[in-house]
Amino acid sequence: MTIKDISKACGVSVSTVSRALNNHPDINPETKQKIMEVIENTGFVPNDSARYLKRTDANNIALVVKGITNPLFSQMIRIMEDKTHNAGYETILRHVGPMEDEVSIAQVLVKSRKLKGIVFLGGAFTHDENAVKTLGVPFVFSTIGNRERRYSNVAIDDLEAAYTATKYLIDKGHRNIGIITEGLSVPSIGELRLSGYKKALSEAKIQYNEKYVYEITEGIEHYTMGNGYAAAGKLIKNAPELTAIFCISDVLAIGACRAVRDSGRKIPRDISIMGFDGIEEGDYFLPRITTMSQPTEKLADETINILLDMIENEAEPKNVVMKAELIEKESVLAV
Amino acid sequence: MTIKDISKACGVSVSTVSRALNNHPDINPETKQKIMEVIENTGFVPNDSARYLKRTDANNIALVVKGITNPLFSQMIRIMEDKTHNAGYETILRHVGPMEDEVSIAQVLVKSRKLKGIVFLGGAFTHDENAVKTLGVPFVFSTIGNRERRYSNVAIDDLEAAYTATKYLIDKGHRNIGIITEGLSVPSIGELRLSGYKKALSEAKIQYNEKYVYEITEGIEHYTMGNGYAAAGKLIKNAPELTAIFCISDVLAIGACRAVRDSGRKIPRDISIMGFDGIEEGDYFLPRITTMSQPTEKLADETINILLDMIENEAEPKNVVMKAELIEKESVLAV
Repeated sequence: MTIKDISKACGVSVSTVSRALNNHPDINPETKQKIMEVIENTGFVPNDSARYLKRTDANNIALVVKGITNPLFSQMIRIMEDKTHNAGYETILRHVGPMEDEVSIAQVLVKSRKLKGIVFLGGAFTHDENAVKTLGVPFVFSTIGNRERRYSNVAIDDLEAAYTATKYLIDKGHRNIGIITEGLSVPSIGELRLSGYKKALSEAKIQYNEKYVYEITEGIEHYTMGNGYAAAGKLIKNAPELTAIFCISDVLAIGACRAVRDSGRKIPRDISIMGFDGIEEGDYFLPRITTMSQPTEKLADETINILLDMIENEAEPKNVVMKAELIEKESVLAV
Repeated sequence: MTIKDISKACGVSVSTVSRALNNHPDINPETKQKIMEVIENTGFVPNDSARYLKRTDANNIALVVKGITNPLFSQMIRIMEDKTHNAGYETILRHVGPMEDEVSIAQVLVKSRKLKGIVFLGGAFTHDENAVKTLGVPFVFSTIGNRERRYSNVAIDDLEAAYTATKYLIDKGHRNIGIITEGLSVPSIGELRLSGYKKALSEAKIQYNEKYVYEITEGIEHYTMGNGYAAAGKLIKNAPELTAIFCISDVLAIGACRAVRDSGRKIPRDISIMGFDGIEEGDYFLPRITTMSQPTEKLADETINILLDMIENEAEPKNVVMKAELIEKESVLAV
């Protein structure tokens, strides 16, 4: 029993069967139901057979990840790998260090692995245009903003979300607000979130103070609890007047909380800590981390949907902006 | 400049150059130094060229992971992917659910992707022997014990480590000790760790009480903070006399801590929580989690060393047992 037999039995094309199997939105619901009924009746195993639809040894999608141990990305990798597999592809995983260029790495992968597509998860916002042009396969930037909108990307509005987070702290009466960020030398998430922070301060007529900004440049990965710990330790030593710190990831926020506690202060009584991402860890921490929650599942889902649509239907690049949501927990107090 | 030119210039075989590039232990140090000097002088780029040594489109190693979002595994995946890549291979990532059979999944992958080798990370201890025999490529079970020693594996002594953890709690005066574990219906890490717990109780002449045992069977992954939270909540409700809970992973321990706190009790004052793994998160939690620390880097390193040795030098299967280390932090108190 092959996918061709299914298509004959249903009187539809093979690619329609494939769309039904892959839960592709672009299919008539009645057709889909009919196909799924035939499949059930025949005992046909969709996953394996969908894979055989395509050339088996060159049916790979690369997942190029900057920040592989970030729990936000662990969740997304699980979802994306699942979806990719269910659509008949295998996932080639590559992580890149904070100073490595993900596009050069992808160029080599495309050549040596006959990739069908690439997901860039995390990393910089702007890339060498010539390098990007030579990739030759569809790709999607995930959790990465895209100012020029020529390439597919899925991300939240980082500037807006950071503005919301900072404004929330200001509305709670904070004036001396630190920020722990990264990647300021290039257009990046860190730089956009710093802009959101600045925008909120400026709107509230609070003077921007460089002493309150810590940029992480250490380690094989930037978003780690260890970096949050070290950064917060330095911030509160150099600027003991801080009453709140906005960390641009929950992992950094958890590290920051620990540093504040080790300095003998309590959270949120003595200092408020605001996170970003909405990872599970933040919800079990003592105190629970108040955060800007990213729609992790939707980001991962949409990334793969767009990539598959480009690979299988030659769809045009697509830009999707999602909304982060402020989740009030226990780590921020009004002053 | 190819790897063949390097081998000619050094008067050694191509595979010797490959061993030097891959930091393989089985090479004369002087020969290695000579090769590396030639490489430096010629400006030859080892990583890319080492990859071309092998057939480019069939040079993949699969990483089949049970529990992909466990931070213990995120770290190991990063290290293993790095080592695999540096040795000239790409990593195909596949996660499997707690109820899926990793060996059947690997069988399909071997056929469709012409794999050179497989790492099984996490999962069950015993597998369908016929299925394992048909894999046809080298494989290593990582963080998985191996009673029969016919297949390569790298793991700590789980029974011994759980015994040490439980004995530590007993030595601190605890008598009513709960355990949160998983996978008891099959030979597994959870079952071995429960045996270690029972051994310590029995040695101290403490009656084993089924009411104190919680087996996790929920969710798309077992080792989650959410499961630790739910499990500890039920344990302390059904057995309020518990003064300590041994969680067989730090992720479960963090969830358990949150449940204890939400019940109005404090850690370690009212109840002690003991973890397992030694993940970074445990060190930033409030309180820091007392744990049995696994040698994460060494486990990952050795897994890939053994696999490469089997792939490249037809080495025999190897069994490596490492030691977990008791790390006293803040979540356990003497009673």
